[in-house]
Amino acid sequence: MSQEAQPISILSASECWDLLAGAPLGRLVTSTEGEPHIFPVNFAVQNRTVLFRTAEGTKLVASAISKEVLFEADGYEDTQGWSVIVKGTARSLHTEEEIAEAETANLVPWTATVKNHFVRIRPLNITGRRFVFGARPAGS
Amino acid sequence: MSQEAQPISILSASECWDLLAGAPLGRLVTSTEGEPHIFPVNFAVQNRTVLFRTAEGTKLVASAISKEVLFEADGYEDTQGWSVIVKGTARSLHTEEEIAEAETANLVPWTATVKNHFVRIRPLNITGRRFVFGARPAGS
Repeated sequence: MSQEAQPISILSASECWDLLAGAPLGRLVTSTEGEPHIFPVNFAVQNRTVLFRTAEGTKLVASAISKEVLFEADGYEDTQGWSVIVKGTARSLHTEEEIAEAETANLVPWTATVKNHFVRIRPLNITGRRFVFGARPAGS
Repeated sequence: MSQEAQPISILSASECWDLLAGAPLGRLVTSTEGEPHIFPVNFAVQNRTVLFRTAEGTKLVASAISKEVLFEADGYEDTQGWSVIVKGTARSLHTEEEIAEAETANLVPWTATVKNHFVRIRPLNITGRRFVFGARPAGS
């Protein structure tokens, strides 16, 4: 079996945002009283923020808004995969101006339900890695 | 625009396990001191448990073992998607017998790195939903 010198490589912030922008589905991770929650959402990238839509009054909104959250997306092909994790703060959009800006992101609703509430995650940091698939290194 | 009567449907436990078994990649979610962490891992389903491999001594192992964790996988096609979330407890496998059993799961290593440590998540519960994609309901 061949041995890969660098099976995992660290991505730059630009690469991370480019990969995020091409991913249709991500996962919001929140923590309430020490208990983690995960919510799959479809999303858009706009000016290096993560934007998604949800219904008002949901558990998602309650656990995410004004708190530090994680947002993860990943993807894979035959021989490699990647994952990007944004750590940031989530905020509901309320003013006409901020909602108008969010509308320009062309965010496609994930499900055919009413989701009239925009949430934007502003990043504190973004990290990403690319993985090479394959067998374990020789000798391991 | 047509209005879907049931844009979201709840999956049975059997459907959840079947979908999980066909997913190559999932995400482990842990919480340390109230702070959530997310780790993409490749995994296998074995006897209604989630099995994955990791390196020893990692942050993943430290934050997951002997604790309640979440495990999420999802998928989508043109017109629908699904997500399954397992809540369970994670445990490292140590005895020859349990490692031999795990080896039979044919778990393909995600990256070409040494990952000689098996972790098994035993479910406390499993929930899953199927989403129909589409426009918002008429009138919303």
